[in-house]
Amino acid sequence: MKNEHVQQIDAAIAAVKSLSTVENFYFVACGGSMASLATGDYFINRELETPSRVYTSNEFIHMNPRGLGKNSVVILRSHSGTTPETVEAAKFAREKGAVTIAISMEETSPLCEAAEYTVHYNYKDGSDAIDGEVGVYFSLIFGIISALSSDEKYQRVLSQLSNLENLFESNKKQTLDRAYKFGMDYKREKIIYTMGSGAYYHQAYSFTSCLLMEMLWIHSNAIHSGEYFHGPFEITDYDVPFLIIKGEGPIRPLDQRAIDFAAKFSEKVEVLDVAELDYTGVDEDLREYFGPAIVGVVLRQYADGLAEHTGHPLSVRRYMWKMEY
Amino acid sequence: MKNEHVQQIDAAIAAVKSLSTVENFYFVACGGSMASLATGDYFINRELETPSRVYTSNEFIHMNPRGLGKNSVVILRSHSGTTPETVEAAKFAREKGAVTIAISMEETSPLCEAAEYTVHYNYKDGSDAIDGEVGVYFSLIFGIISALSSDEKYQRVLSQLSNLENLFESNKKQTLDRAYKFGMDYKREKIIYTMGSGAYYHQAYSFTSCLLMEMLWIHSNAIHSGEYFHGPFEITDYDVPFLIIKGEGPIRPLDQRAIDFAAKFSEKVEVLDVAELDYTGVDEDLREYFGPAIVGVVLRQYADGLAEHTGHPLSVRRYMWKMEY
Repeated sequence: MKNEHVQQIDAAIAAVKSLSTVENFYFVACGGSMASLATGDYFINRELETPSRVYTSNEFIHMNPRGLGKNSVVILRSHSGTTPETVEAAKFAREKGAVTIAISMEETSPLCEAAEYTVHYNYKDGSDAIDGEVGVYFSLIFGIISALSSDEKYQRVLSQLSNLENLFESNKKQTLDRAYKFGMDYKREKIIYTMGSGAYYHQAYSFTSCLLMEMLWIHSNAIHSGEYFHGPFEITDYDVPFLIIKGEGPIRPLDQRAIDFAAKFSEKVEVLDVAELDYTGVDEDLREYFGPAIVGVVLRQYADGLAEHTGHPLSVRRYMWKMEY
Repeated sequence: MKNEHVQQIDAAIAAVKSLSTVENFYFVACGGSMASLATGDYFINRELETPSRVYTSNEFIHMNPRGLGKNSVVILRSHSGTTPETVEAAKFAREKGAVTIAISMEETSPLCEAAEYTVHYNYKDGSDAIDGEVGVYFSLIFGIISALSSDEKYQRVLSQLSNLENLFESNKKQTLDRAYKFGMDYKREKIIYTMGSGAYYHQAYSFTSCLLMEMLWIHSNAIHSGEYFHGPFEITDYDVPFLIIKGEGPIRPLDQRAIDFAAKFSEKVEVLDVAELDYTGVDEDLREYFGPAIVGVVLRQYADGLAEHTGHPLSVRRYMWKMEY
């Protein structure tokens, strides 16, 4: 029998397929959850003709996009399922008749009650990565893409997602020393810029917003590698630190150009080259879909390295969860 | 006889109308030009069912969105018309059969040669603001919206754009002292965050990327007011400076919430309240369309204030225009 996650994903994909036409996809969440969803938006936008767009939950409700309706698919996410803006967004989209799919660790949460379909993921319970947040989300997204496309390669992506557990472990091992060295070298920095493009831009955004700013109280800005040369690069100097994700796929030249420039004028450029990661079990032509799935767990170790060497645990907050806001 | 700008805008709008269906709009540019275009994306997305999306030029080409084709409208912009990525993007989109509209100060530029339609704007030549970058762009965008919508209010927006010149002058006068006071108070800051939401988010992005980082070498990050609470707000402290745009329209509550929080924990919060600006000649229900048109010239004065008090002219660069990159 299929496990619970697979059943939920299948039901959500069937709901998408049951629409006569999918007019558009909306990905709606806040912060790190929004950044995670944005990877799906990137691939849908590249691989399908159906338009797609990402919103932070509160703006989604307030701006009330004209395209939202009964042929829309709205995918929402909140780790705890309690983020008030996202719960409201689910209700709002459902009232408009859209197919609403909630992704959460907590199945009995307000978000999962508000949305029509629920996709639950396991979290730090020792189960295989295919049932964790990345495995479940990629199964949903490539399941949707596969349902709306005739290209066989998306089915291969789906079957090779079973490698995620091993890929997470091997890549964490491969990058551990480097990540802790980064923590030692950059522990006195008050500001660290991140950079990336394509689906990796959202990894940079997540690292900036949730790891550097939220958890480590280090000033940051996630700069798009293509935008760097149109303003931001003027702050580059010998002592200005950058953590740059060098992606795989068609956007790689953008990242390379930014790295070349930054490294010429700054002595503090750390490059995470996604092409150097381990992709055992992944077909050559599918590597670019797996890079964004793997890089999050690798980046987390960079934050762990900073936490270790600054003595500032990632669990510390001064405002979040401590007061009303 | 209609002036050259009006003729060009009319021709571009006629090309959009001549499509049997407009499948999608793409707004493609880099840096400050991209941020300017994003205002159009915001309003099209809110007021029309047609999907719309913004790309930095290089990523647009490399990711090659599946939806791009002969029923697409691609609007590009470069002040000089020479930005290589944007020129390439125009060629790329035109080869795909899309309607391409180039916006530039320089009519005889590579960008204007690459695109099918050209919309030229005047720049600092003493002519009326209706023929300047904002006037021309808003005429084009609301002309397109009006052509694809039956709501009469967009025609009223178009006719009231003739007030822009007076509105720029009166609002610059109204905010001048405050902007220079800001420059004096914040002149020693090494980092200044900006914040905003809706169409104003792009003003914050532009101020961050082009004015603070590029022209003043001050570290910055444009935080979306709705995203602030999902990570970034943890860097708030008594000595962390923010410049927050308090917008008009449906997103105003997002900004208010961010202002309330930031002002509670930081002693350095500057609020630019768009509702306090002068809107003489603008109908009450159209104010929210005019705010984003006006706020750029007001924000520029804040940068002038910083330039004055830091002794760092806005014209200074260390890399841009000085080397190959």
